[in-house]
Amino acid sequence: MSGPSLQGLLLDLEGVLYQEDAAIPGAVEAVRALQARGLALRGLTNTTTRPRREIAARLAGLGIPLGAEALFTPPVAAARALHDRGLRRLHLAAAPALAEDFAGFELVDQAPEAVVLGDLYRDFTWERLNRLFGFLRGGAGLIALHKNRVSRRGAEIALDLGPFVAALEYASGREALVVGKPSPAFFELALADLGLEAAAVAMVGDDIEADIGGAQAAGLHAIQVETGKFTAADRDHPRVRPDLRLASIAALPALLA
Amino acid sequence: MSGPSLQGLLLDLEGVLYQEDAAIPGAVEAVRALQARGLALRGLTNTTTRPRREIAARLAGLGIPLGAEALFTPPVAAARALHDRGLRRLHLAAAPALAEDFAGFELVDQAPEAVVLGDLYRDFTWERLNRLFGFLRGGAGLIALHKNRVSRRGAEIALDLGPFVAALEYASGREALVVGKPSPAFFELALADLGLEAAAVAMVGDDIEADIGGAQAAGLHAIQVETGKFTAADRDHPRVRPDLRLASIAALPALLA
Repeated sequence: MSGPSLQGLLLDLEGVLYQEDAAIPGAVEAVRALQARGLALRGLTNTTTRPRREIAARLAGLGIPLGAEALFTPPVAAARALHDRGLRRLHLAAAPALAEDFAGFELVDQAPEAVVLGDLYRDFTWERLNRLFGFLRGGAGLIALHKNRVSRRGAEIALDLGPFVAALEYASGREALVVGKPSPAFFELALADLGLEAAAVAMVGDDIEADIGGAQAAGLHAIQVETGKFTAADRDHPRVRPDLRLASIAALPALLA
Repeated sequence: MSGPSLQGLLLDLEGVLYQEDAAIPGAVEAVRALQARGLALRGLTNTTTRPRREIAARLAGLGIPLGAEALFTPPVAAARALHDRGLRRLHLAAAPALAEDFAGFELVDQAPEAVVLGDLYRDFTWERLNRLFGFLRGGAGLIALHKNRVSRRGAEIALDLGPFVAALEYASGREALVVGKPSPAFFELALADLGLEAAAVAMVGDDIEADIGGAQAAGLHAIQVETGKFTAADRDHPRVRPDLRLASIAALPALLA
């Protein structure tokens, strides 16, 4: 990873720029310094329940200067993928608040060209799944906002979206386009959004597999910060080794200088 | 397929022995002749909604002399697989009427050693699936009564059991044992039930893929009858070619004489 060739950065949000309800020390200044250096930035998050405008508002409240247009979320990636494919009629089976991330599309309940699927939790009934399957049988493509197997819900490890994506893939005999880390498609769509090649971009993240492994699989450089989810065990990860490790994002601008 | 070495037959029921509400002409006499010749017979069906006692009663009503102990269904195969593995505590997530096919097992709603999964149709809710997933996380194995993608429900092609098996497989990261044609495990369990090797047994069926292809994949001989689901297009099937084709099961005894 050579500094001069680097033109863009993908920044994970939680654990890299902020933690719980506060910016990570030095993160605000780091983002400003990277912007001042002319690097193209995108905040890259797997959040699938809130539109990017809300995420930007939250970041602004923490003093982090990344506007909505600088955020790349699975819904934003899905919108880009649909646009690239010339598809305009979509059925949004996800948090209703995400509708604003699909401005310019026609949101329909009949004969969609694509289904955008998020975690419907207890709304994953047989009837709902069968209706979505009907859309796929009618020729609609399936875009999944992620494919996580399980998630913690209260005290319980419970089914996440992934098993329902798998069910619809099996029923239809066709694979979903999965957007969200660590899917290579997600990183590729983010690169297209930046208008940069993988070799000119580094991912900065705390999650050794989703951020670092995912970015490297898509050909990007990858920098792990020792904040957020980072643990000492990441140093001995059996498969993934970041190009660089930093105490926190605060150290990044000096390093790229 | 040489007559003298043949010691057992697996007979598909619908389309081979009966059609709608009547025995296929000559089927009753054929079954009697095959029994008189000392061949071991098993009626092999994918029915997963009724216990074998009920199926035997229906056959008896049509004059077909195959008792419950001569019927091999997915629930019966599941019971045999559980027995072979020394598992006794099972959770039955299937038609309640099937409980009698699991006599000798303990049917439980907590901490099962295995989950036997049938088509729950509209009872496939998030809560129900998540509960089954909890059993799998607790170490229970998953036995699926089949893995069909879709089925006709009234006027509609709709989700069958298979997509929900796929969902639980994806969530748990482990494959289900699928019993029911064309799964090789189903034919192998039927052979164990007969106490015969594959080379000594022929499957007689009307379905070119489930019966003929499935049996051959498990090493059995396979005879297609030109009744039931048979169509002329089966003669040009791109992958499957039966060892023998007969106008109907009525022709079988003379052929084996």
